Amino acid sequence: MNNVNEAVKKVEYAVRGPLVVKAYEMSKQMEEGKKFPFTELVFSNIGDPQNRGQKPLTYNRQVLSLLMNPQLVSNSAISNIYPSDVIDRAQLMLRYTTNGNGQYTQSAGMPFIRENVADFIQARDGYDCDPNDIYLTDGASIGIKAILELLIRGPNDGILVPVPTYPLYTAVIPEFGGTSVLYQLDEENGWSLDVGALRKNVQEFKKNGGEVRGLVVINPNNPTGTVLTKENIEEIIKFCHEEEIVILADEVYQENCYFPEQFPFHSFKKVLRSMGEKYQNTQLASFHSTSKGIMAECGMRGGYMEVLGFDQDIVQTLYKLRSIFLCPNVVGQLCVDLMVKSPPMGSQSYSMYRKEYHDVYESLKRRSIRLVKTLNKLEGVSCQPVNGAMYCFPQITLPPKAIAKAQELGMQPDALYALRALEQAGLVVVPGSGFGQKPGTWHFRTTFLPQEDEIEGMCTSLKKFHDGFMAEFA
Amino acid sequence: MNNVNEAVKKVEYAVRGPLVVKAYEMSKQMEEGKKFPFTELVFSNIGDPQNRGQKPLTYNRQVLSLLMNPQLVSNSAISNIYPSDVIDRAQLMLRYTTNGNGQYTQSAGMPFIRENVADFIQARDGYDCDPNDIYLTDGASIGIKAILELLIRGPNDGILVPVPTYPLYTAVIPEFGGTSVLYQLDEENGWSLDVGALRKNVQEFKKNGGEVRGLVVINPNNPTGTVLTKENIEEIIKFCHEEEIVILADEVYQENCYFPEQFPFHSFKKVLRSMGEKYQNTQLASFHSTSKGIMAECGMRGGYMEVLGFDQDIVQTLYKLRSIFLCPNVVGQLCVDLMVKSPPMGSQSYSMYRKEYHDVYESLKRRSIRLVKTLNKLEGVSCQPVNGAMYCFPQITLPPKAIAKAQELGMQPDALYALRALEQAGLVVVPGSGFGQKPGTWHFRTTFLPQEDEIEGMCTSLKKFHDGFMAEFA
Repeated sequence: MNNVNEAVKKVEYAVRGPLVVKAYEMSKQMEEGKKFPFTELVFSNIGDPQNRGQKPLTYNRQVLSLLMNPQLVSNSAISNIYPSDVIDRAQLMLRYTTNGNGQYTQSAGMPFIRENVADFIQARDGYDCDPNDIYLTDGASIGIKAILELLIRGPNDGILVPVPTYPLYTAVIPEFGGTSVLYQLDEENGWSLDVGALRKNVQEFKKNGGEVRGLVVINPNNPTGTVLTKENIEEIIKFCHEEEIVILADEVYQENCYFPEQFPFHSFKKVLRSMGEKYQNTQLASFHSTSKGIMAECGMRGGYMEVLGFDQDIVQTLYKLRSIFLCPNVVGQLCVDLMVKSPPMGSQSYSMYRKEYHDVYESLKRRSIRLVKTLNKLEGVSCQPVNGAMYCFPQITLPPKAIAKAQELGMQPDALYALRALEQAGLVVVPGSGFGQKPGTWHFRTTFLPQEDEIEGMCTSLKKFHDGFMAEFA
Repeated sequence: MNNVNEAVKKVEYAVRGPLVVKAYEMSKQMEEGKKFPFTELVFSNIGDPQNRGQKPLTYNRQVLSLLMNPQLVSNSAISNIYPSDVIDRAQLMLRYTTNGNGQYTQSAGMPFIRENVADFIQARDGYDCDPNDIYLTDGASIGIKAILELLIRGPNDGILVPVPTYPLYTAVIPEFGGTSVLYQLDEENGWSLDVGALRKNVQEFKKNGGEVRGLVVINPNNPTGTVLTKENIEEIIKFCHEEEIVILADEVYQENCYFPEQFPFHSFKKVLRSMGEKYQNTQLASFHSTSKGIMAECGMRGGYMEVLGFDQDIVQTLYKLRSIFLCPNVVGQLCVDLMVKSPPMGSQSYSMYRKEYHDVYESLKRRSIRLVKTLNKLEGVSCQPVNGAMYCFPQITLPPKAIAKAQELGMQPDALYALRALEQAGLVVVPGSGFGQKPGTWHFRTTFLPQEDEIEGMCTSLKKFHDGFMAEFA
């Protein structure tokens, strides 16, 4: 092990960390008949809706089935079971791939899909979008990694990363030899982002000889559930423009805004374009994914990024790096196309698609409300409002005896809490220390993705476990 | 551009380099009506069979279509058009994914597929294979990158890379800050690999304070077409064992051996296991892909690696790094399953599958022979026998006037040759300088993937172009 690249040893990724590995082992033992104090494990560690039983959207899967075997398109047996617009859509998509979809595509993705992404962004934001600025990627993570790799030259290059954060960022930045410059979100004010704090962090890092090169901002936020206001985004853009910092806008939860009247999603691109000419050379890379939203096709690894304001030679380098790995996977690309171009009003599949979409969306909203309410009723637990994404990130005030016990075991106190939740209640949540938190505070992250019947049971067993834990260490 | 990571600026990847970009531009202009001295472009720059018109195997695509929409499996319309074993196979594969295939899988890939890969390797080699040693990957490239990242700590870490090489290696090694230690293959002896030369390279690198950490060996070889003998592989293993060098065995063309009686494929794993107890702790990572062979599903980005002899904590680090990107794409994984487990003898799809497989294989063989013969008849061109893979890598003796002309234009002479082949004949080949070659020698790489009618035309226009080029610079 002394022989391994130091940078990779530093990498940590809590969402699939040791606690989750333990949960999988327990799940296996359970199948083999071992008894536990619960009858099933509730995996709330990861934003993977289909894993908790959410069904894929019917239209998407119908189209994909035809794309996998184009011979079906012209088969009369299929025209009896599939709506005609599904067949039309498949035919349209097949027309763009002369020799079928088993080839490598262009490294930035299939041109017709990049055009559809550009149309989608244009319709969403009301501003022009150039397909040449779009790169399809295997999920959003690969795009994020590509931009970070461009930016980071060494340990004096800093990337501003929120605390708490999705741990991809703190994992990848040291992998490229850079430094994560952490900025604390303001929990008491609904986890808001204070640009004054950003400024202080940048100044401090500069004082020590560093240069801040990028800012990671996650909106809607994972794990906090916050949706940024337009005004806040404007401030962030002004700040980054002034400091010549590249904005990495992780917008994979853009469809997951549950109170759009009060807390609508504003893309960084849209806010940037609405600002003065002066700001238009701000460097912005924004990321989207087919893994979240309502389609939630995590396994397909589809995604895209829009890259704005970068020098042309930097974009060429990006293209070159992407080309080594030839192309993003084709089915992920096809999923991006389905995400950005759903069946239009009046088409045969429209009403079923809308119904399925609406049902998932409304259910996610109900479940988020249900879980936040449960959490806020627990002793010593406080959870900020969840306006978006798929997670709650409650703070837990742990009794001194629990903290002492954790120290005795050489664990973080919230890791002890999460371990006990797993062992005693079968709840798989991720300790706050995996995302970062203000020293002396403790949290955990849980999804609200268990289906409606399961989430009821989850709330009950969480309460029971929590009360027991608090009593034990009172 | 001064602001970009130095390591990534150094990266070069010829297979999708500037010449190919130019070819795509010409292709677009052609569509728009521009006239060229030829009527179509022949893309022979990349090992992408379906791009040249090869059809996917019917059975595979039938199964995939059902997996994309499991509702079809139980539909009577489908049982009328699909063989029953296709439906059975889909049902079997669906049974392993309780909540469907839209979820993230385990980071190393779905357990049932890793087991089928292990069975495949066991049947191929006659030695045990542990599914825990198997990692599914998005194509082979991602696995190769993962191992290189583990090995490389800094510029004093060297990786032995053949010359010529598949340029992925020379692209990725500097990306991680390491050094490619180039070893020359022996063209006059059918591009054989001389372990004596390896040893010399290692000693020299050590003398300069370096440590050689890995050896890349490509078998069957891209671009040379060589298939290594068992004896040669034994020598390589002994050498790497002695020097404690990790072997990276790129075996993605293992199905593409066209003279299996004389030049059969021997996997490094099999040869290693056939050697004494003493060698069994040799560190070996071998790579396979769904992009090559006969199924040739390049776009699906499926692949796997088998990792042997590594310390347990290194394997854990590998798993951790893989987990950040959650999982390989699901359809690529499903393609791996289809590759390692084809319809068994006696099943309904068996004879069609075998016929399609056989037809592709025999045609590839015919085309390789056809192209090698054509090349060897050209003035000043010599092409070694092609026993495997998908490429010819002929040497061209360029006239001094052509070399002078290239110098005048600031180009490599073989880049000039390839550029002229594109401009005058519409042939898209890659200059030898993109793969590395002995100083003073010039080559190009071409696939033999154009279909049989197209390859006839290609041979004719190649001869015409070449004769004209040689006459011009005589």
